[in-house]
Amino acid sequence: QWMMLDWKPRRPDMLIDPFGLGRIVQDGLVFRQNFSIRSYEIGADRTASIETLMNHLQETALNHVKTAGLLGDGFGSTPEMCKKNLIWVVAKMQVVVDRYPTWGDVVQVDTWVCASGKNGMRRDWLVRDCKTGETLTRASSVWVMMNKQTRKLSKIPGEVRGEIEPYFANSPPIVEEDGRKLPKLDDDSADYIRTGLTPRWSDLDINQHVNNVKYIGWILESAPLPILESHELSTMTLEYRRECGRDSVLQSLTAVSGAGITNLADAGDIECQHLLRLENGAEIVRGRTEWRPKHATNFGMLDQIPAGNI
Amino acid sequence: QWMMLDWKPRRPDMLIDPFGLGRIVQDGLVFRQNFSIRSYEIGADRTASIETLMNHLQETALNHVKTAGLLGDGFGSTPEMCKKNLIWVVAKMQVVVDRYPTWGDVVQVDTWVCASGKNGMRRDWLVRDCKTGETLTRASSVWVMMNKQTRKLSKIPGEVRGEIEPYFANSPPIVEEDGRKLPKLDDDSADYIRTGLTPRWSDLDINQHVNNVKYIGWILESAPLPILESHELSTMTLEYRRECGRDSVLQSLTAVSGAGITNLADAGDIECQHLLRLENGAEIVRGRTEWRPKHATNFGMLDQIPAGNI
Repeated sequence: QWMMLDWKPRRPDMLIDPFGLGRIVQDGLVFRQNFSIRSYEIGADRTASIETLMNHLQETALNHVKTAGLLGDGFGSTPEMCKKNLIWVVAKMQVVVDRYPTWGDVVQVDTWVCASGKNGMRRDWLVRDCKTGETLTRASSVWVMMNKQTRKLSKIPGEVRGEIEPYFANSPPIVEEDGRKLPKLDDDSADYIRTGLTPRWSDLDINQHVNNVKYIGWILESAPLPILESHELSTMTLEYRRECGRDSVLQSLTAVSGAGITNLADAGDIECQHLLRLENGAEIVRGRTEWRPKHATNFGMLDQIPAGNI
Repeated sequence: QWMMLDWKPRRPDMLIDPFGLGRIVQDGLVFRQNFSIRSYEIGADRTASIETLMNHLQETALNHVKTAGLLGDGFGSTPEMCKKNLIWVVAKMQVVVDRYPTWGDVVQVDTWVCASGKNGMRRDWLVRDCKTGETLTRASSVWVMMNKQTRKLSKIPGEVRGEIEPYFANSPPIVEEDGRKLPKLDDDSADYIRTGLTPRWSDLDINQHVNNVKYIGWILESAPLPILESHELSTMTLEYRRECGRDSVLQSLTAVSGAGITNLADAGDIECQHLLRLENGAEIVRGRTEWRPKHATNFGMLDQIPAGNI
């Protein structure tokens, strides 16, 4: 009910989204989709995990392309891109989380695309609490084109530009670009290393490759448990450098900034550097995360309820 | 539009579910919720994974209890159960999958509860294609009560029975009970063993325990890849025997029935026995799965698209 008042849509048909599959709003340049947070999308903190948030971003990006009628291959490429064997690959992703939603919350995800340099595309997202309008998450990403056969980066051909340019918004990045270089971690500079990480069958996407959202779980595998327990992720910057397939064996490295921190659980804001690499050293993802102390929680009280609760 | 015609609701307010959180139908005994299958819920086959289906079952069960106003603790226990420190634990689960939905499909999940013996409750689910009404999945589960402190099974106290009995439907199980005993696998009888399985941080639920849906992923970890690639899971029977926490290290054992099968990829229907156990041998879950050959797929064609596609 309140949503009708709050939305201020420009056309009546913008109201209609009976299946929750999203719709185009704001003169055709913004795609909007609501998600109710489900019980299995929340983690040990009762809040949505960062992977859940990233999944919602992925879903709206794909549905945006689909709703615009530009889905050539079923997974993000436009018809002209398919003809030319071109695919989008994500080069960089920046995420800022102000607050994590909880089970039953409904979040409203807006996404739009902009030009980025001569041969890139930026995709931004704004995630709000559907009830209050409060900003929960902002994210900004940069995409480039790659030839599927040669695996080389490509300029954006004129025909493809013709398809996508009408959808470009003209707005500054919703997350200001963090220009700080992400350092390359190695065995010496990393504080925590987790080896032998392999994709599960269920981690594979329709290309039998590991979806890039799964990388986040692996990156956090090497984050020390005291941080995960006492802090929540507030910002994340990822640079994707190489894909990984179903037979890859990965290593996850984390360095905690301010090496003097001995009691992580009681620390204030914490910054970490991350690297996901193959066993031969090839870099998959470089990353930086920032963490803030969690609000008071009741872990102890809940600890005895068994897993058998469906 | 067609849904309006198809649903035949008994009261107009049953139509209203603007946030996709579900509603009670059929004289108050059936809870119904629709799910649109999201891009990140599909796997290498472009269809929803069995974990996705199980997650939808979990979500409707919890929302059913919530909508009935019986959610005492936020995770499935009624107010009287909370007073008495009682929780539901799942003892058995049987699932039959006729067809797996794909990205963008909308499924309609109906769930209801019945008495089961003197001290149990049965919960059934019927999952249909929202557009065609075709049955996709049926599932039947048995739940018992456990004292949270003593970890002993409990009878259903009269006060609790008073709360839940008005919601009991009177219908036979939607999946006929499979009375065949699940054998206990060991190192000798298992054909495939995967050791050293540990929960990731993101596998933990709000109780810092591993949610029972996650067990399915681990069970399938020891299923041979040729089966996963060439076959799809058609039925699954699970007996839950013990919970597992965040520090547990698990072993997953699988035996393929008909030991004569040498070329699994070309085999017809396949039956497997499973055991998930702790390293000390304690049983977590016993299971049986049946697999049927997949329809023709196009794996080769898709194999070269990289992971970078958000």
